[in-house]
Amino acid sequence: MFEKLSEVKVLRDPIHGYIHVDLQVIWDCINSREVQRLKRIRQLGGAFQVYHTAEHSRFAHSLGVYEIARRMVEEIRDLRQTLSEEEKITVMAAGLLHDLGHGPFSHAFESVTTAKHEEMTRRIILEDTEVHRALVRCCPSLPESVAAVIDHTHPNKILVQMISGQLDADRMDYLLRDAYFTGTKYGEFDLERILRTIRVRDHKMVVKESGMHSVEDYIMARYHMYWQVYFHPVSRSFESMLALTFARLKQLRQQHSPILDQIPIFNAFLEGKSVSPHEHFLMDESACNYGFTLLRQCTDPIASDLARRLLDRDLFQSCEIHTEKQLETMRERLIEKGWDPAYYLTVDEVRQRPYQPYQGNENSMVWVLMEDGSIRELSEASVIAAALVHGESKNDLRMYYPREMEKR
Amino acid sequence: MFEKLSEVKVLRDPIHGYIHVDLQVIWDCINSREVQRLKRIRQLGGAFQVYHTAEHSRFAHSLGVYEIARRMVEEIRDLRQTLSEEEKITVMAAGLLHDLGHGPFSHAFESVTTAKHEEMTRRIILEDTEVHRALVRCCPSLPESVAAVIDHTHPNKILVQMISGQLDADRMDYLLRDAYFTGTKYGEFDLERILRTIRVRDHKMVVKESGMHSVEDYIMARYHMYWQVYFHPVSRSFESMLALTFARLKQLRQQHSPILDQIPIFNAFLEGKSVSPHEHFLMDESACNYGFTLLRQCTDPIASDLARRLLDRDLFQSCEIHTEKQLETMRERLIEKGWDPAYYLTVDEVRQRPYQPYQGNENSMVWVLMEDGSIRELSEASVIAAALVHGESKNDLRMYYPREMEKR
Amino acid sequence: MFEKLSEVKVLRDPIHGYIHVDLQVIWDCINSREVQRLKRIRQLGGAFQVYHTAEHSRFAHSLGVYEIARRMVEEIRDLRQTLSEEEKITVMAAGLLHDLGHGPFSHAFESVTTAKHEEMTRRIILEDTEVHRALVRCCPSLPESVAAVIDHTHPNKILVQMISGQLDADRMDYLLRDAYFTGTKYGEFDLERILRTIRVRDHKMVVKESGMHSVEDYIMARYHMYWQVYFHPVSRSFESMLALTFARLKQLRQQHSPILDQIPIFNAFLEGKSVSPHEHFLMDESACNYGFTLLRQCTDPIASDLARRLLDRDLFQSCEIHTEKQLETMRERLIEKGWDPAYYLTVDEVRQRPYQPYQGNENSMVWVLMEDGSIRELSEASVIAAALVHGESKNDLRMYYPREMEKR
Amino acid sequence: MFEKLSEVKVLRDPIHGYIHVDLQVIWDCINSREVQRLKRIRQLGGAFQVYHTAEHSRFAHSLGVYEIARRMVEEIRDLRQTLSEEEKITVMAAGLLHDLGHGPFSHAFESVTTAKHEEMTRRIILEDTEVHRALVRCCPSLPESVAAVIDHTHPNKILVQMISGQLDADRMDYLLRDAYFTGTKYGEFDLERILRTIRVRDHKMVVKESGMHSVEDYIMARYHMYWQVYFHPVSRSFESMLALTFARLKQLRQQHSPILDQIPIFNAFLEGKSVSPHEHFLMDESACNYGFTLLRQCTDPIASDLARRLLDRDLFQSCEIHTEKQLETMRERLIEKGWDPAYYLTVDEVRQRPYQPYQGNENSMVWVLMEDGSIRELSEASVIAAALVHGESKNDLRMYYPREMEKR
Repeated sequence: MFEKLSEVKVLRDPIHGYIHVDLQVIWDCINSREVQRLKRIRQLGGAFQVYHTAEHSRFAHSLGVYEIARRMVEEIRDLRQTLSEEEKITVMAAGLLHDLGHGPFSHAFESVTTAKHEEMTRRIILEDTEVHRALVRCCPSLPESVAAVIDHTHPNKILVQMISGQLDADRMDYLLRDAYFTGTKYGEFDLERILRTIRVRDHKMVVKESGMHSVEDYIMARYHMYWQVYFHPVSRSFESMLALTFARLKQLRQQHSPILDQIPIFNAFLEGKSVSPHEHFLMDESACNYGFTLLRQCTDPIASDLARRLLDRDLFQSCEIHTEKQLETMRERLIEKGWDPAYYLTVDEVRQRPYQPYQGNENSMVWVLMEDGSIRELSEASVIAAALVHGESKNDLRMYYPREMEKR
Repeated sequence: MFEKLSEVKVLRDPIHGYIHVDLQVIWDCINSREVQRLKRIRQLGGAFQVYHTAEHSRFAHSLGVYEIARRMVEEIRDLRQTLSEEEKITVMAAGLLHDLGHGPFSHAFESVTTAKHEEMTRRIILEDTEVHRALVRCCPSLPESVAAVIDHTHPNKILVQMISGQLDADRMDYLLRDAYFTGTKYGEFDLERILRTIRVRDHKMVVKESGMHSVEDYIMARYHMYWQVYFHPVSRSFESMLALTFARLKQLRQQHSPILDQIPIFNAFLEGKSVSPHEHFLMDESACNYGFTLLRQCTDPIASDLARRLLDRDLFQSCEIHTEKQLETMRERLIEKGWDPAYYLTVDEVRQRPYQPYQGNENSMVWVLMEDGSIRELSEASVIAAALVHGESKNDLRMYYPREMEKR
Repeated sequence: MFEKLSEVKVLRDPIHGYIHVDLQVIWDCINSREVQRLKRIRQLGGAFQVYHTAEHSRFAHSLGVYEIARRMVEEIRDLRQTLSEEEKITVMAAGLLHDLGHGPFSHAFESVTTAKHEEMTRRIILEDTEVHRALVRCCPSLPESVAAVIDHTHPNKILVQMISGQLDADRMDYLLRDAYFTGTKYGEFDLERILRTIRVRDHKMVVKESGMHSVEDYIMARYHMYWQVYFHPVSRSFESMLALTFARLKQLRQQHSPILDQIPIFNAFLEGKSVSPHEHFLMDESACNYGFTLLRQCTDPIASDLARRLLDRDLFQSCEIHTEKQLETMRERLIEKGWDPAYYLTVDEVRQRPYQPYQGNENSMVWVLMEDGSIRELSEASVIAAALVHGESKNDLRMYYPREMEKR
Repeated sequence: MFEKLSEVKVLRDPIHGYIHVDLQVIWDCINSREVQRLKRIRQLGGAFQVYHTAEHSRFAHSLGVYEIARRMVEEIRDLRQTLSEEEKITVMAAGLLHDLGHGPFSHAFESVTTAKHEEMTRRIILEDTEVHRALVRCCPSLPESVAAVIDHTHPNKILVQMISGQLDADRMDYLLRDAYFTGTKYGEFDLERILRTIRVRDHKMVVKESGMHSVEDYIMARYHMYWQVYFHPVSRSFESMLALTFARLKQLRQQHSPILDQIPIFNAFLEGKSVSPHEHFLMDESACNYGFTLLRQCTDPIASDLARRLLDRDLFQSCEIHTEKQLETMRERLIEKGWDPAYYLTVDEVRQRPYQPYQGNENSMVWVLMEDGSIRELSEASVIAAALVHGESKNDLRMYYPREMEKR
């Protein structure tokens, strides 16, 4: 029914060996300008400033999520037999397209714009884009169903669980991929084993008890990747500085500074209105970096200095905050030395528990199919998960300030 | 002072890249008949019956422990600078020699003999053996000091901690090695990072806070290896059957059965007296397996049947025991069908907590050097370790019986 | 038609991830005593004396050959569509069973017995064994067809090519496996790519031009493994000494020495008659090693000394021979010192060309399917292969003698 | 004498485990804006259009070359003992800095500018830059000596050989790194073994005969990487189209087109004069890609179309050329359909022999130290190398044209 390619296309991939594509609609989506743009957006925001090889793109990750979704619907018997052909295509396309709405350096960039990346992803899929046309050519209802999987409203909850549950294609790909490209081992877990032990029961994906150890390992992998990579103080320093830089640009905009006339790259994003998919399409990491290159040459000393720091990796130092006093003292010292604390001091806090099932939120839970046929939430089956749920969460509160403040 | 080889010998090793040997005494020990014998003893007892590639020997593991000990004393500055040359040689030799006293299939075999492997190791090092002579040639006090490290009585507790603490060369090698040779990923952790973050403080090895995540990962690796490999029901089935076979042999011995005159291989071990290092030397897995080959052809139906099952992998089934009744029922069914429960029914229980520091036992603890210079026991520094210490331990109680009992 | 298991069995394997078994006949063969015996025969003869982790068994290799054969018939479309179900089972079983006839330490051991391992493999498959009965239960003609694939007489030449051609499941598994277990990288090549580019044309397996580079890489991998592992002088020293030991045993046998009455293990093999499959079954590496343990304690000084050297790795030295004179001089020096050159001096030569297609022997050739649809022999398509075919072959002629002869 | 850091800095790297830095001058160079710029230049030009994960930067490669150079001077005894401290720093810095002069997409970009990257590298090291100042702070003669190593004029030829010989740090890093990031296995070889077998004889680096097999493997790895990655038709298509795009820009420049006033990014490079280090500094892949983003919106239909194709990966098809006629026919068909062949048809040829020592060019040779102490050029010691030198070279001549020409 759905058009197949004349022969299977395979793309070499270090994580999955090969990415296999045999549907015309997937191939057309991959070749669309919106998906190709993801080659110009790095997967890991500022982490390349800590792990110098973490330069992989959201394009590669998107292919990986598609590939895991494809393997799920083809290799897990319960899914192969219960999902319709259209549902299978929907979930594979959702895997490929779930990150379309991201801007450069993701979270920092979102802080400037009012639109969230989830909303932008939805618009790209539903409005008149190459991706949209590719989906429609395959099946007119596909854009709506793909968008519904991505924003969690699809009536078949298994499709949602496959792309954004606790054991989903998105996280499984990014943990393995980020581990490979950073060169750490923390993110490794046994994907094969997990895929082999997934079943469908009570309209949801569950893991057989014999795969529970692999899930425990996956949860620990995720915990370690958070603290060693995603929450690394240097990553967060870079991202904090991006946010400060955009805050300065917004300020210049409010002052109608002529500087921004010569550096129009960011303008659409500084007006406080939502941007269009076309404006979004033009904004990638190349544009952003070239914007900083222009900015470092501009006459505003703060914007110029922050842009230089970002490009040359002259990043802010950080330290843990234990008392209000610390922050106050730093603020005073900065003012004393002539630095504006609005742009040279910032604070952020991260907090995480490795596994945390929330009452009433099925998507936050992992389900285990016990040997006796019963189904339990993970922390009722695993002594490890139980310990983690009842233990404390870990948090880290830091302030960031110029390296120069450390010199005496 | 201590004799060096004219050039460094290197042995290819998949875990460490190369094993490096530049001391004459280490080279002589490696080439001694007692260490070479370890090539004929598998590292993992019955696990090769589950993981068909788990066929690596205690010889390879012993080289690996030596290599990690060597790297510790050469690459960890605090150890390199504080240990004397003799202490360094002592700990490297202890790493190489710590498993000398093992018999075939380790724990099952120990159940027959009265001597424990620790005691046999001590005798091999201290009595007149090739290993002993190699150590004495280097330094007359070396046998005593090496034996003291292995049996935890050495006055320098750091040497003991390096070979049998919580983060010791022995465990670090076997986790990595067993993971590699089983083909699982559970046992992997970041050895490089742990070695890089070890320091010496208060006369003990501690890990810098920046390496704490790697230690958490190591602890989880250990936990998973226990349950997925060492405590796998099939491994335990094989080992239980070994114990039953030896129990049968002991019984035959007590009955002065003429069978054992034709199969003298095991005799020295069935008399209830302690064996000599020479008798121990002759008993390896080749002898044991060939003994089973003879036994399968003998006239005692139970010994012959058990030996056949061991050789042909016709292993006992197992199931978890929840009630006394289950065991009783199985016993009755066995008797009904003409099987002697003394040799066809057995029970074992395993229990484990990933990390458990015991009051008053320093060796059970991992110490963390915090950024502020203080030293904390791991579960006071890590929310993961704290959760695990306060969570439940995991246990598994099983009975084993012939496969034939499952057929109806 | 052919009985399937109720659920697919999977065996963890470091080379292939998992070995997949879904046919009853394959599962029964794996569980037969003849295949289980291969756990007691190492894959690599004496190489574990150079690469201390090369301790993997022929059992693991046999599973690997089966797995590659299974993937070939299931994943290569041209094979999946043209082979009958019986042919598919035949070739998978042939992969699993092709090594059954091997004795311990393979080639050295064959030098004692008159039967060749190919002939013994054939007898085990065709005579009354557990393996034979498992094959017959599946299909009465299976033993004959499996044996025909193994001895190259099967009418469908593709089946022969799959198990013992130039790009066969046997070599592809052993190169990858031996590389993994020695810890070298020489044997690595891109199995996935080769499998993906195999087609069937003109009743033979060919490789698409786009996979030719992977084949070149495979040929170089094979070349390097030969010289770095299989032909390593230390491996050859160990194997030469095995042959000398067996020669001594034969001599003792001819002299009706009473020694062999106390060490009957080898007797069946010393009589010059062909051994039965049952006698063959009893002879494994455990028996052989235990035989050496007894031999080292016997009263014949030569047999005892050689056995000790084998067990304790006190191996002969070797050097390249360039002139007849060298050999003569060594012989004279040995006699002078009281060593019998018949047992303390031996010579062997190895010679190899990485790729050598022989006229009239289709099995010696690799065929390439060019983009224009024509088929060429590899050296007509690849400048690398052409260079190797027309270049010189490499050879190495060595003599082996006791280490003691080197001391002055 | 030369300033050390207070503690060794380590950077996680998937190829080398860690990059180790303990010299202040190396740390300062890494943190210079010129070296940081290399984060914005991909290592592999257009190969990311074939291998979607080949997105690693020249920054990561530069660290890797430094690390191999560091290991050479610290771990190879002959180098450690014969090179002076200043020579060691010189060669490590040369490894780190050898690629500074590269523009975006390397070779394609060079075709526009008159300056070659070697010349630009030299200027950046010798003129007033952050890198230059860091070198001078360490030692005033360092810029000159580093530049001399890079442009092959340094009096100590071993330093030149280490960075740009046949077995140099540059190639060894890029083969391993490119293999890792493309996910292919072709580029793997045994770096450890090669480093372990390097010696210095007759004022040059030689490899011991026992490492010769690793060198053969390295040469084959290089050959395969060339044809599978660097010369892949899709990489070459992307790079050909870059050259056509720049050709179009030059044409617009010559016509004084007003388009370039609005897109000034490339102007400095289109004037036919040599650019300054500062202009070079501003031109990275971000600038280039953003330039294409502007260009796709411009009014010149050819420039706009080519820019769109580059950004959206709508690349030219290619086919091998066997006759002049093919090219002529394509040219005519293009004109007929209204495409300008000057911008829509291009030809390139690649040619390579895996190993080719040139008379009189010592740097083109690998030297082998034979067991008898003599030194031979590789092809006189290795039957593999000899075969390759005397075999044919491989070449590939292709034309590239729009995909649309294939549709009928």
